[in-house]
Amino acid sequence: MKLNIALLAGDGIGPEVIDQAVKVSDAIATKFNHEITWKPALTGAAAIDAVGEPYPDATHDICVASDAVLFGAIGHPKYDNDPSATVRPEQGLLKMRKKLGLFANVRPTFTFPSLLDKSPLKRERIEGTDLVFLRELTGGIYFGEKGRRDEGETAFDNCVYTRAEVQRLAIKGFELAMTRGKKLCCVDKANVLETSRLWRETVQAMEKDYPEVEVSYEFVDAVAMRLVQWPNSYDVLITENLFGDILTDEASVISGSMGLMPSASVGTENALFEPIHGSYPQATGLNIANPMATVLSAAMMFENFGLQEEGKAIRAAVNKALDAGFVTEDLADGGKAYGTKEVGDWLAANI
Amino acid sequence: MKLNIALLAGDGIGPEVIDQAVKVSDAIATKFNHEITWKPALTGAAAIDAVGEPYPDATHDICVASDAVLFGAIGHPKYDNDPSATVRPEQGLLKMRKKLGLFANVRPTFTFPSLLDKSPLKRERIEGTDLVFLRELTGGIYFGEKGRRDEGETAFDNCVYTRAEVQRLAIKGFELAMTRGKKLCCVDKANVLETSRLWRETVQAMEKDYPEVEVSYEFVDAVAMRLVQWPNSYDVLITENLFGDILTDEASVISGSMGLMPSASVGTENALFEPIHGSYPQATGLNIANPMATVLSAAMMFENFGLQEEGKAIRAAVNKALDAGFVTEDLADGGKAYGTKEVGDWLAANI
Ligand SMILES: CC(C)[C@H](C(=O)O)[C@@H](O)C(=O)O
Ligand SMILES: CC(C)[C@H](C(=O)O)[C@@H](O)C(=O)O
Repeated sequence: MKLNIALLAGDGIGPEVIDQAVKVSDAIATKFNHEITWKPALTGAAAIDAVGEPYPDATHDICVASDAVLFGAIGHPKYDNDPSATVRPEQGLLKMRKKLGLFANVRPTFTFPSLLDKSPLKRERIEGTDLVFLRELTGGIYFGEKGRRDEGETAFDNCVYTRAEVQRLAIKGFELAMTRGKKLCCVDKANVLETSRLWRETVQAMEKDYPEVEVSYEFVDAVAMRLVQWPNSYDVLITENLFGDILTDEASVISGSMGLMPSASVGTENALFEPIHGSYPQATGLNIANPMATVLSAAMMFENFGLQEEGKAIRAAVNKALDAGFVTEDLADGGKAYGTKEVGDWLAANI
Repeated sequence: MKLNIALLAGDGIGPEVIDQAVKVSDAIATKFNHEITWKPALTGAAAIDAVGEPYPDATHDICVASDAVLFGAIGHPKYDNDPSATVRPEQGLLKMRKKLGLFANVRPTFTFPSLLDKSPLKRERIEGTDLVFLRELTGGIYFGEKGRRDEGETAFDNCVYTRAEVQRLAIKGFELAMTRGKKLCCVDKANVLETSRLWRETVQAMEKDYPEVEVSYEFVDAVAMRLVQWPNSYDVLITENLFGDILTDEASVISGSMGLMPSASVGTENALFEPIHGSYPQATGLNIANPMATVLSAAMMFENFGLQEEGKAIRAAVNKALDAGFVTEDLADGGKAYGTKEVGDWLAANI
């Protein structure tokens, strides 16, 4: 396969971890006879510094022209103290999601046997956890009308959803469930919100098209509890943008392997792959960041092209590194820690 | 003191656990020379069955005329499958909060040494946890305009906050922090929502009035993570209605003592005290429900009247019962389990 991949390294440790994912992907290309052309482009604080905005048109053009986007991380402390500034790295993220039509954020949470003891949860609670959130990413309160009235004394944010938006996300949820444990949980707040009632009735009406999928409906507050109590009771969960923001982050820490969790954001035309961790500014340039989440995001990218074997080969290399203790300091547990670059080299060599 | 207390037992196990709280409160009244007059009133499914609505005017009148409201639990499975039905127990709850002006929901999460091992979290994560959420309870997306457009194809919910609403909640937060660890965390999503930016700027402007309080600002997704990772790093947290709904429930399970967690909802004129658990319909009438959360809610009620010794006496009795293993089956851990009523009797006898 010939693949054009837009490479958005972003801020902080982004460039370092992206480099390792490139290295590992190139090893995959060599082994499986693919040809990858990487197209670097600016994003985040790096883009603000260079051209004054976090998601420049030039970057968008490169993303649109590519077969997929591989993304590092964005965010810089110099923007942290003033969340109301209009030019902020995060604004670029939202613009990018919207313009690329990335309506479904795919966030798996799974465990690595060798890392179970890193979880804040007891082993028997976390063992066997293997769930995937599908978070709606281009609608809801993130993108509804927002502003002030009464000379700034009143603020408002509008949450809006259409049936079509719910349907396209739910289709992905049902289809994903069919390839896994055939369980789908629709997370909403239908006892309070009208948008949630639209979600629930839309999903209910789709149940008959997927008779094999067992569908449940749970309130967002109940899921926030059960994720901590019995995370291994879930398979696929679908939910709206803001609930997804909160719950996927909650889910990411229960495995104890946050530094290893990849994600995908997909739409009809475009797809983006990124680690779920942030830009970790304190670690920038120190060659200590764990590149595995980004490397596993590349695995998701190959799988999204239908290249299952390629994805498997990457996952196997990561598992092998974990078993061999060839890991960065966050996982070293007092043992020997290797650098970001060294772990990347090791993974590429073990493809 | 002469106290008139409205008694809203509600549904499911509500009446059983309320009975025990009455028993214990009466023992307190005897010991400390108070006179409590209980005013029972209908609410929840029980009220729908009797008079067709979940928070009847007659009940409201009794609440308004009382010095406090002691509340059991509401919710009945017959209303669970149709969240869009207009007459639902939960609608009564929201109406009650609004009409009584209960704008601040006080939700402590603390641990009992003897129950630490019940937590899904590892002991070293949960030990020492003692935090309080102040959730805004009468504003935000719960009460904003909501509805449908485009022949039902589009749904919307409006989230609205005024500076005054944020201020009155934040004042309670700062004041509570002053009586505790002097740390206040404002939980918002100021990188996305305009209402959150209003929250943040309002709290920032109040910092100077409480120079001793160390204030931090965290995004709701980050708090959802840190509550699982390091719950003992928090003291007082303030947040808006929907974030509070999700995070307080998440917090409630980390202690492992959900069946013991009390809460208060207070306003300028009225105050209501209730266990955070639900109506637990399967257990109705079986004399197995744990009454301790309701009993501890009565402790919060006394404390809210300034009767600290009375509150302390109740807490001491609960701790004594826990240490003695005089508990209901949820806490019995294979040992002997006592009935709801028996635990209530024991607590009253040990006041
Ligand atoms: C940075 C922020 C705008 C973003 C979001 O809320 O979507 C982030 O938290 C995420 O989950 O990707
Ligand atoms: C029942 C429901 C409307 C309610 C809420 O969301 O406020 C409940 O979850 C709570 O937290 O008291």
